[in-house]
Order: sequence, then C-alpha cells, then structure tokens
Amino acid sequence: MSITDQTIAILGGTGPQGRGLARRFAAAGLDVVIGSRSAERAATTAAELTGSVRGASNAEAAAAGDVVLVVVPWDGHKELLELLAPVLAGKLVVDCVNPLGFDKQGAYALPVEEGSATQQAAAVLPDSRVVGAFHNVSAVLLEDPEAVSIETDVLVLGDDREATDLVQALADVVPGMRGVYAGRLRNAHQVEALTANLISINRRYKAHAGVRVTDV
Amino acid sequence: MSITDQTIAILGGTGPQGRGLARRFAAAGLDVVIGSRSAERAATTAAELTGSVRGASNAEAAAAGDVVLVVVPWDGHKELLELLAPVLAGKLVVDCVNPLGFDKQGAYALPVEEGSATQQAAAVLPDSRVVGAFHNVSAVLLEDPEAVSIETDVLVLGDDREATDLVQALADVVPGMRGVYAGRLRNAHQVEALTANLISINRRYKAHAGVRVTDV
Repeated sequence: MSITDQTIAILGGTGPQGRGLARRFAAAGLDVVIGSRSAERAATTAAELTGSVRGASNAEAAAAGDVVLVVVPWDGHKELLELLAPVLAGKLVVDCVNPLGFDKQGAYALPVEEGSATQQAAAVLPDSRVVGAFHNVSAVLLEDPEAVSIETDVLVLGDDREATDLVQALADVVPGMRGVYAGRLRNAHQVEALTANLISINRRYKAHAGVRVTDV
Repeated sequence: MSITDQTIAILGGTGPQGRGLARRFAAAGLDVVIGSRSAERAATTAAELTGSVRGASNAEAAAAGDVVLVVVPWDGHKELLELLAPVLAGKLVVDCVNPLGFDKQGAYALPVEEGSATQQAAAVLPDSRVVGAFHNVSAVLLEDPEAVSIETDVLVLGDDREATDLVQALADVVPGMRGVYAGRLRNAHQVEALTANLISINRRYKAHAGVRVTDV
C-alpha cells in the first residue's frame, strides 16, 4: 500500500491547519478531499488550491478518504467522530487535534479524560486504525506560498506499525517534512500539548517554531 | 549576574544524567559541586572528571550552589526538596526530573498531582526561583567523551525571566547545546513527558535522540 495511491480526506479542512495540509498534499500530487461543516465553504477553499483537490461535507469527505485526517477544533472533536464512526470503520484515521486552552498568558494543555485527543479518537473509533500526527506543524508556514520547504519533523504516534509507517510516508511527501515514529498512543498527550510550548516560543522569538529530532 | 561566576550544584549528580551534566559544565570551566546521598560516592564521581568539580552530600551541595540542579530519581523527589527547602531558599533551582514509568512497552508519563515535577518543586520551594530544563538531553551523549558537541536544544520553562535567561545561558556553555525559552511552568509537564517519546524513538531508530526547535 503506497501513500500516493490513497485519497486523503481532511476533516476541518477549511481552518488554517487543515487548509495548509491540503495545500501541501495536493501540491505533492496526492488526491485530496477537503471536508467542512459547510460543503460550500469546502468547495471554495478547494478552488483556491492547485492539484487534485475538491470540497465536500465532513461526512462525504470521510466516506471518500482512504486516509482521513481530523483537523477540527477540539470543541466538538468527540461528537463529530461519534457521528462519523460508521463511515470511518476500516479506515486509517490521523488525529491532528491539540486540546489547548488560551488565556492572557498564552496557551496551555487541557486535560482530556481519555489521555489525549488521539486516544479519544481511538476510543470512539474502535473499528478504525487511529494514529496521531501533524500536531506541531505551523499553519502559517503550511499556508505560506513562499515556504518551499517545511523544515520540521512530524511526530507520529500509534500502536499499529503498518499505520504509523503509512503516516510517516504521508509526512515525507512534503518537501522538508519528515515523519518520525515517536511512540505509542499512550504517549500522544505530550506531543499534542507541546504545541502550547511552541506557541510560547513563537511569542518570545517571533518565530514559526517546529521540532526536529536529532540523531535520527 | 553571569553564569560563569556561579557555582553549579547537581543534586543526584552520581546518576548518568547528573554525572553527564557535571562533566560538561566542568569542561566548560564552571565551578561544579556534585551532590549525592553518599558524599563519598559523590567524591569518587568528581575525581573521575576534569575541571573544578568536587563531591559532597546533597545537603552540602545545595548549600554550596548558587544554581542548584535537581537530577534525582522521581521517587523521592518531593521528600528531598522538602528536606532541603530552607537551604535552597533564595537560590535558583533547576528541576531536570522526568516522572516516567516503565513497562515492557517502554516508557510512559506518570501523573503528577502538581502538574509536573517542576511545578512540584515550585510548590515545595516557595522561597526559591524554580525553572525546568535539561529534561530531554541524552545521558549517553553527555557521558560520551567522543561527543565533542551535544547537538540539542534545552527547553527552559519558568515564570521568572531573569531565571530562565540564566538557565538558557547555562545550557549555552556546552558546545552544540542551546537554551530555548519554551514557556511557563504550567507547560512543563509535556516537556518532561516528551522524554518518554524520545525513549521510544531511541528504541526504534537505535539513536540518542534530542530535540531542536526550528525557526529560532
């Protein structure tokens, strides 16, 4: 199974992160379906991108995708996945959601009953293969047409080797990006929460910070 | 206040991580005191290193240090700091402890009532300035005499700008190492827990993984 043969659906694909990932995957030649609560808005976003990319409702995108990325707001994450569980059965689901709160001191990690957004997805989708990835990638860089290369590693979390291998390959299609296996689902929380640190770093250094793993 | 004028105490300095940091700081010309439950063991470890480095009990080391690194096992962390709170008052305390559990599937983050080891230190040491740092640095690399440069960033967490600046400067004395401000104490947990991911990465890739922040 090669990642280039797969249709990539992006639920919540009209937000900055989802739209940025759609842009990069389409530019790399993958077949992309952007999902949104509003199919019309998804179609508008898709029309702004180049490559094989179309818009649909979240439910239609979930049905069309072989690999389904979840890039929706944390608020509503569980409800959407519960609703789509039947259509996501048998598919590879990549959760990219960071459960964060914000106040005047910046971002902080929210507690999650299941441990992490990714583990929540795995609990709600027992018949899907669930992987966590793309948590720490700057939406600003993804959307910047002048950023030819995205110099960051994508930490990939999961309990199924074939699934994490495929998601690593998905990260690898974007120039500069590299998928790195980074542990089991039980270690997803801190990778999601690390995004709060990257937001602190961005504030302090006026940067669009990402993570590279050394010695790998 | 320059970091090179400070005496660096390392509580738990006979373990691999503490010993490795002592080696690097002493090699960079800093004055180092290794603390241990056994002053004799600390003296033996100190004698194996070059530079201005001596051994002492943890209590003596805490008293001697201007900057006191806490590199003790998580089991006993709180009790030791409670005991040393009077002598640590007014000092800069750098917590480097990762609350991790281990089983046959590898490492995982332990829950901490205060949120993180660093926040626990801050709670127990209200009269000290507490910073979190050096969580993700490979002990193997620190101890490897052939590793001339330690190619990793040190994520520095704290609520006191002068204190985090000083700890960044401490990281910067080691060739290849760079101190990066990475947020407030409330965002320390995920940096500590990320060590579990690095252990997973080390297993998978036969590496001594570290972290670099991109675009900074």
